[in-house]
Amino acid sequence: MTARSDLYAVIMAGGSGTRFWPLSRGARPKQLLGILGGPTMIQATVARLQPLIPAERVLVVTTAALAEETRRQLPMLKPEHVIAEPVGRDTAACVCLAAVVIERLHPGATMVLLPADQIIEPADAFQRALAVGADLAAQRRLVTYGIAPRFPATGYGYIRVGDSLSQDNGIGVNQVERFVEKPDEETAKVYVAEGTYRWNAGIFCWRSDVVLGELEQHCPWLTAALAPLADHWGRADFASVLDGIYQPLRKISIDYALMEKAKDIVVVTGEFSWDDLGSWDALYDHLPHDPAGVISQGQVVTHDCLDSLFYNSGRQTLVAQGVEGMTVVVTPDAILILPKGRSQEVKKVVDALKASGRADLL
Amino acid sequence: MTARSDLYAVIMAGGSGTRFWPLSRGARPKQLLGILGGPTMIQATVARLQPLIPAERVLVVTTAALAEETRRQLPMLKPEHVIAEPVGRDTAACVCLAAVVIERLHPGATMVLLPADQIIEPADAFQRALAVGADLAAQRRLVTYGIAPRFPATGYGYIRVGDSLSQDNGIGVNQVERFVEKPDEETAKVYVAEGTYRWNAGIFCWRSDVVLGELEQHCPWLTAALAPLADHWGRADFASVLDGIYQPLRKISIDYALMEKAKDIVVVTGEFSWDDLGSWDALYDHLPHDPAGVISQGQVVTHDCLDSLFYNSGRQTLVAQGVEGMTVVVTPDAILILPKGRSQEVKKVVDALKASGRADLL
Repeated sequence: MTARSDLYAVIMAGGSGTRFWPLSRGARPKQLLGILGGPTMIQATVARLQPLIPAERVLVVTTAALAEETRRQLPMLKPEHVIAEPVGRDTAACVCLAAVVIERLHPGATMVLLPADQIIEPADAFQRALAVGADLAAQRRLVTYGIAPRFPATGYGYIRVGDSLSQDNGIGVNQVERFVEKPDEETAKVYVAEGTYRWNAGIFCWRSDVVLGELEQHCPWLTAALAPLADHWGRADFASVLDGIYQPLRKISIDYALMEKAKDIVVVTGEFSWDDLGSWDALYDHLPHDPAGVISQGQVVTHDCLDSLFYNSGRQTLVAQGVEGMTVVVTPDAILILPKGRSQEVKKVVDALKASGRADLL
Repeated sequence: MTARSDLYAVIMAGGSGTRFWPLSRGARPKQLLGILGGPTMIQATVARLQPLIPAERVLVVTTAALAEETRRQLPMLKPEHVIAEPVGRDTAACVCLAAVVIERLHPGATMVLLPADQIIEPADAFQRALAVGADLAAQRRLVTYGIAPRFPATGYGYIRVGDSLSQDNGIGVNQVERFVEKPDEETAKVYVAEGTYRWNAGIFCWRSDVVLGELEQHCPWLTAALAPLADHWGRADFASVLDGIYQPLRKISIDYALMEKAKDIVVVTGEFSWDDLGSWDALYDHLPHDPAGVISQGQVVTHDCLDSLFYNSGRQTLVAQGVEGMTVVVTPDAILILPKGRSQEVKKVVDALKASGRADLL
């Protein structure tokens, strides 16, 4: 594994996720929670990069509301490396902003972009895949990461892989044939059966100058808007200049702005397990359960229960008797109860609370 | 309806009930809770006697631990009429104690004994039945109250009725043929089908001198022990004398001590509805529910739920999404979740908490 001294990481941590309501809140989204016990997801994300990418070369792009707590959780990062977007303008702006900053810090550096709230194990397999991608990126390739699908997920985008460029030490490198949107279940089953599809992990690697060049070609208004920012890095007016640039920007994702347009993208498929932990049901696979399939976190007493998740971060004792197939989450100001397997409905709950003016709970 | 000026009521309120855990606690049993909203059950019990038995002729027998709160909830009662048993010695001792006191207050008075935690409606039908029983009691009869069974309950004792003595204005009076213990379901079905059985409501009426005479005949050690108390009524040493008498007493219920032995008991069957509210499931019938059968008490938000009870007396917002057939109870220090229809299992929960040293929750 090559330890490149020009390799930077950019952790995208702007999510305001509500999928773990009532535990996750606007002011405390999933990445800032230790939802599995132990470190928070963003702390785990930084730790998982070590030693390949030391903390001094890790940047975080987050929101103004979350920047202070993010810096508090990541004291090993330079405070100015936690960059606060004044408003959310989708992923292409985030990538472009990060590339402008990194190109300023280290011209021609290689940068890995990754979400703050994924579960990836083990770290060494992940770092080996990152290193393979970084070497390709240093050769001016655009690199994305794919996950061999474990089931016909309908919640992820997919990547259809083309020619194999290498297959070494468990790490496959292929040409990207095309990116495809979240499929319906029928289609997802076909994708899984065919073996030529990967889940799109939302992890990318490229040189800062290369991605700026690509964006200039495919989305020139974006680079034109952000380029002037380089001169303000490290200066007192950085935040206000960023604000002036960001406010009028229209939103566009990196997928639309770049990935679906660029030629010659490669996909690296590693031997690590990956979960973007999109719901309470997904969490079920990551916490220890008893022989009856019952997960108890916090102050929980269960009798005769089956196949349920009891997640108590409140002060009360939670007692469940004869409960089957339920998810129960307790926080100091809210309690959520819903059937296991239906945790995508948390979104409905959050929408309804919003509609009924219960912003205090969001 | 005769308004007898010699008619007293004795409310038996010693229950430490755990069947409504976590709402009911050792220090706050069911009768001291406003479980239906509004007045507490003991307050409702006193109110239900008005105007037949005015507050100055109502006594309460409770435990030392509950006496203060009971007096606080019933400021219209004379404080000394809330009598605290130093220890629980079952219902025969309670009845004998009350009879000794009432005989001292008003020799030859008629006394109705009734539990503090039943739901009886409407009050006027109940009072009419009480008045009929009181007139019979004044003629030196032992009177008990029966409820026409609505379903084959296995949680109640039954009374088999004999000859009809009168049937007037919806109130039946019969000779008691015999008292029977809580039946199994098969037997209960037979009882309901035969039409000659009543639920034993645990409500009695008799003259104080008559019941003391009957107890002297059937349980002489009890009257011998309690008789000396009469001389201490209204004196500073009443509580300590009562303590000295009660501590060594062995426990015996009024059913064993008297009802199953005495000849010539009559049973009054009234036209009031009656529920001893023995469980969370029983409560379900007494609270308003929406068209989907969902009861929401307190701060509760439900979507797509069916046939469930959400009882929130905590400070959190309780949100239920897609929940069917569950009972959920929230208090500031405990949350209980169990399937609807299985609320008799609350006892298991309480026993387990006791066994595991969680007296703080009991």
